Amino acid sequence: MSAGGEFDYIMRRLAPLSAGFPGAAGLTDDGAVIAPAPGNELAVTTDTLVSGVHFPAGEDPACVAARALRVNLSDLAAMGAQARAYLLNIVWPHDATGALRERFADGLAAEQGQFGLHLIGGDTTASAGPLAVTITAFGELPAGTAVRRGGAQAGDLAVITGTIGDAWLGLQARLGARERLDETHEAFLARRFSRPEPRLELAAGLREHAHAAIDVSDGLLADFEHIAGASALTLHLALDEMPVSRAAAAWLARHPDPRQGRVDLAAGGDDYELALAVAPHRLEALRTAAGVLPLTVAGRFSQGPGGLHVTWKGEPVEVVKKGFTHF
Amino acid sequence: MSAGGEFDYIMRRLAPLSAGFPGAAGLTDDGAVIAPAPGNELAVTTDTLVSGVHFPAGEDPACVAARALRVNLSDLAAMGAQARAYLLNIVWPHDATGALRERFADGLAAEQGQFGLHLIGGDTTASAGPLAVTITAFGELPAGTAVRRGGAQAGDLAVITGTIGDAWLGLQARLGARERLDETHEAFLARRFSRPEPRLELAAGLREHAHAAIDVSDGLLADFEHIAGASALTLHLALDEMPVSRAAAAWLARHPDPRQGRVDLAAGGDDYELALAVAPHRLEALRTAAGVLPLTVAGRFSQGPGGLHVTWKGEPVEVVKKGFTHF
Repeated sequence: MSAGGEFDYIMRRLAPLSAGFPGAAGLTDDGAVIAPAPGNELAVTTDTLVSGVHFPAGEDPACVAARALRVNLSDLAAMGAQARAYLLNIVWPHDATGALRERFADGLAAEQGQFGLHLIGGDTTASAGPLAVTITAFGELPAGTAVRRGGAQAGDLAVITGTIGDAWLGLQARLGARERLDETHEAFLARRFSRPEPRLELAAGLREHAHAAIDVSDGLLADFEHIAGASALTLHLALDEMPVSRAAAAWLARHPDPRQGRVDLAAGGDDYELALAVAPHRLEALRTAAGVLPLTVAGRFSQGPGGLHVTWKGEPVEVVKKGFTHF
Repeated sequence: MSAGGEFDYIMRRLAPLSAGFPGAAGLTDDGAVIAPAPGNELAVTTDTLVSGVHFPAGEDPACVAARALRVNLSDLAAMGAQARAYLLNIVWPHDATGALRERFADGLAAEQGQFGLHLIGGDTTASAGPLAVTITAFGELPAGTAVRRGGAQAGDLAVITGTIGDAWLGLQARLGARERLDETHEAFLARRFSRPEPRLELAAGLREHAHAAIDVSDGLLADFEHIAGASALTLHLALDEMPVSRAAAAWLARHPDPRQGRVDLAAGGDDYELALAVAPHRLEALRTAAGVLPLTVAGRFSQGPGGLHVTWKGEPVEVVKKGFTHF
């Protein structure tokens, strides 16, 4: 642990994370220089995570670092981009200890190594407010191939990677807002909240086989509604087809109203799975590209009045809250 | 004024700021796509401004928007890049009114028009903390031509654009921390704090004629020390040659210790002028490129033990605080 100040922290802990990326100039300069390979473009995405809003106050700073990086990588995955580099803007609370800052840098170092990324710039400040972490992530992809929300076509299948609702259940447990399941399930759900898995392994497959994609951050219903809206289509989504984990199934089995339970999972958010629109004849190719990552079909896009129509065993479901908004 | 929420604000006030930049997809997507022209690179820089730290609490949100954008454009100018696009991450305090958010968007719209920029993405959230605004700015420049801090050579002149210390004096007046001058001077100093002028007009000239550059944000002394350190040279800086405005001169004339007054101006920061290292035979060409923007020579880089040596009328000056640090 060092008692050094802002510049010491940047040079000792952050600058080494830029090694191997010449355009970052060792974080000693006014900015970084970056260029895609010829014929490629850069994909750029940014998310701000605030303590007490996007993660519980008192969260392990290494988990905050992991989460901040991963939610951005999830956006790159949804665009079909390969991750390359990132910027870090951090506002420390005045009472943050040196040990907390060290732990944050440890987490960041471990994460960027896992994803083959480089830190290329940022800004380190302090305030009277809560810890706030902004990551801006840069990906790369062939020019003109970015997967967008607005590309769904009538007849496309609504496809979901992995399982939905685990992160919300993990957060509810952290908040003491639900009864606990057995320890194996709880450990799985806690990790699903604290370590979202960006589906970068599917990026190239998406560019080739998906018409539209979004990562599930606000909630499956809200995010599929974004695709339907941007594509000017109606999406009929079958809640009973939504993929859930064994842990979520165990929670649903105890729920007095399993239909409402599924609505809560579908509106909870923080899944960082991908919600996709895929032409039926491309589904098998996409499954091959996905490898061991499960893909589940839970609906179909069609012409119509637009928006999201949710059903449960064939019956329409009224959904009041589809996801999270900040104001 | 609308009572709409987060998505309404983004679509109604922010999305129009992306018009004309196809890669922004109208801010409806997970991220933006950007590429430099063939043979060019992107310059990327980012700064976070927090209420009560980087600007006074209660500041006009239109001024906050202007300041957040301009301090980033100043970094692009120091790299020799032309500004193209930006990301906006904003954390609103929970008690921010719709009127404040409208005012912020008004300011942003006016500013980006003035600089020919497009908003291409970002993140809008709210927290219990103070207003925090992060801008990430993208510039463009020919590959390999970025002006860096570490390029100064022995014999180079230390050159300063505009005048130093005005923004600090403007802030001191805002804080009630000094006696007031006449109204014309005060209006000038207030504006120098609230509307820094990024020296983008000098970007191309810097690439051609300067060995090193930095924008003066932490303080002239701290920032020139960054150039000297990164270039492994000693800089002899003559405080009495430092350019000051007529308003700052009026303040100095009343100061009981004009030498200490100059040290305060040189350590104050927020100038967003450029501090440069320029070979003597390039000075006239750089002056021509600068047009009406004054350039002042205030020192010289040399081989030696390294670091910054400050003098006042030929006598060494001990400087305790050279600029601002956050922790």
